[in-house]
Amino acid sequence: MAVKTDLDPAIADRLKRTSDGLVAAIVREHGSGDVLMLAWMDDEALHRTLTTGRATYWSRSREEYWVKGATSGHFQYVRSVALDCDGDALLVTVDQVGAACHTGAHTCFFDELPVTSPAGGADR
Amino acid sequence: MAVKTDLDPAIADRLKRTSDGLVAAIVREHGSGDVLMLAWMDDEALHRTLTTGRATYWSRSREEYWVKGATSGHFQYVRSVALDCDGDALLVTVDQVGAACHTGAHTCFFDELPVTSPAGGADR
Repeated sequence: MAVKTDLDPAIADRLKRTSDGLVAAIVREHGSGDVLMLAWMDDEALHRTLTTGRATYWSRSREEYWVKGATSGHFQYVRSVALDCDGDALLVTVDQVGAACHTGAHTCFFDELPVTSPAGGADR
Repeated sequence: MAVKTDLDPAIADRLKRTSDGLVAAIVREHGSGDVLMLAWMDDEALHRTLTTGRATYWSRSREEYWVKGATSGHFQYVRSVALDCDGDALLVTVDQVGAACHTGAHTCFFDELPVTSPAGGADR
């Protein structure tokens, strides 16, 4: 964890973090339901997300907190946050301003991979 | 990576793996668009997912491949797989048989956390 955090201990106790102290945050757009991106949060990023209303992540490459939109203006206003059953992933539902992806795309998931099930492979 | 893999090198070259050799896989239900769960894939799990039509993950706790539904019958038949812009996350769209969550819930994200934006926190 990068800094001392004020995250509610009752929530912190339910997190199952990577060796780097992070949980995965799936970001979904309110309304459309589109999956926009995957980011990472430590306890303090989650605390800031829950209490400021703006999605805040931990940047693994820059090793710093990252308020989504702080430089681009493409803020994510937080509608809800849910933790998964084993505590290692969050689903963050947001109102997205502009494009979620740094490429300018609506979502980060635009590179479709070929699914080539063999004949009879999915026997249903 | 656990085993030698037949994953297309052109795809493997685009993956940005954790130190454990994994990429995060967000699983979304076809039709409803519901986000069901987060799991992990190494190269071989991705290869099997793309070529067998059944979602296959790497279990970090059991350290083995895991065909979702192999024991529960709750298979995930793969509709599409997309890689994100920086290669460290996959969006897997599936037809889900039964419940996605081992608790019996439809999705793993049922633990809502309190979002408490301070007045004026999201100044819009």
